[in-house]
Amino acid sequence: MSAPIDFYFDFASPYGYVASAAIDKIAERHGRAVNWHAIVLDANFTSLERIRIPKSVMRSEYIRRDAERLAAFEGIKYNTPSTLGLHTEQAARLFHWVNDRSPEQGRSFAQRVLQAYFVDDRNIAATEVLQEIATEMGISEEDFHEASSASASRARLKAEVDMAEARGVFGSPFFIVEGERFWGNDRLPQLERWLASGPY
Amino acid sequence: MSAPIDFYFDFASPYGYVASAAIDKIAERHGRAVNWHAIVLDANFTSLERIRIPKSVMRSEYIRRDAERLAAFEGIKYNTPSTLGLHTEQAARLFHWVNDRSPEQGRSFAQRVLQAYFVDDRNIAATEVLQEIATEMGISEEDFHEASSASASRARLKAEVDMAEARGVFGSPFFIVEGERFWGNDRLPQLERWLASGPY
Repeated sequence: MSAPIDFYFDFASPYGYVASAAIDKIAERHGRAVNWHAIVLDANFTSLERIRIPKSVMRSEYIRRDAERLAAFEGIKYNTPSTLGLHTEQAARLFHWVNDRSPEQGRSFAQRVLQAYFVDDRNIAATEVLQEIATEMGISEEDFHEASSASASRARLKAEVDMAEARGVFGSPFFIVEGERFWGNDRLPQLERWLASGPY
Repeated sequence: MSAPIDFYFDFASPYGYVASAAIDKIAERHGRAVNWHAIVLDANFTSLERIRIPKSVMRSEYIRRDAERLAAFEGIKYNTPSTLGLHTEQAARLFHWVNDRSPEQGRSFAQRVLQAYFVDDRNIAATEVLQEIATEMGISEEDFHEASSASASRARLKAEVDMAEARGVFGSPFFIVEGERFWGNDRLPQLERWLASGPY
């Protein structure tokens, strides 16, 4: 089996949400696995390559409209959240706790969080919303608290973000396969060509 | 005939170059005209919506590779210029001088400048390179100097940039049709759907 695809996303990114609905299908068509990585783009990203997209832009009329149009174009359910640009550290810490134990469960957790935010307009920066999702997945209250706030969970997320930055990730969604970087779900056709016929 | 498509580009943008090879064909398929608008994104753009893409990013390895891959994907000739992120005020002033007299000539001038930069690796910030292109097009030396540096030409470009900003343009390429804004050539499939079947 060929190298897996690394899929980086921030739970705050509508574009990451749209990509999350497509990437596994693309990978499957080409016999590849996908490793999902939740990252937090606001957290200590200092790379010179970083394109800073300020909250004012994420909350701008253009992005609001663009995300709606993109989701309609791709045929994906999407309701613009009341608040774009939420803090996503806690959701990302929980994701890694679950994902390190089971990638299938990690993917399921990520999909539930993304749906809560981008379909059901729930505040995924709120502990009670995340706890509800965790409970649905059979995660105990004790584990939830460890996963969402223990220093080991904080360190785990920081390491993930540092690794992403070291690999040249600077946006969401971001894909890396065989060292080749693809930024944005509009690069998925190029990624697919890469998977089908190699470097170009 | 339906409303024309406004196509905004910065001569420094490889993405604008790639879009310039596609937009007229898309418009033609749907019976639309295209108005070309050269803008300068560094010039006094203060909109809150503006996404600042610093020169370090435009010159980054990611953008270099992405533009090459995109051009290969689209089947367009492209050679990464020795210097990305050149100043494009003079080229943009000349464009408007020519374009205001004849849109066909304006388009031809723009295509020659884009080809000089993105295929032949010529320095389009240099007066002599622009003058050579102007001479090929039958523009006299006197007209060239007026077009590239007279205060009327400066004011013309400033008005164009102000108008672009007022209309919500903040990147290159940028398209507006019937008030709907599309940023990036990767939004061309969405623009084409709009042209084919209206708002969605």
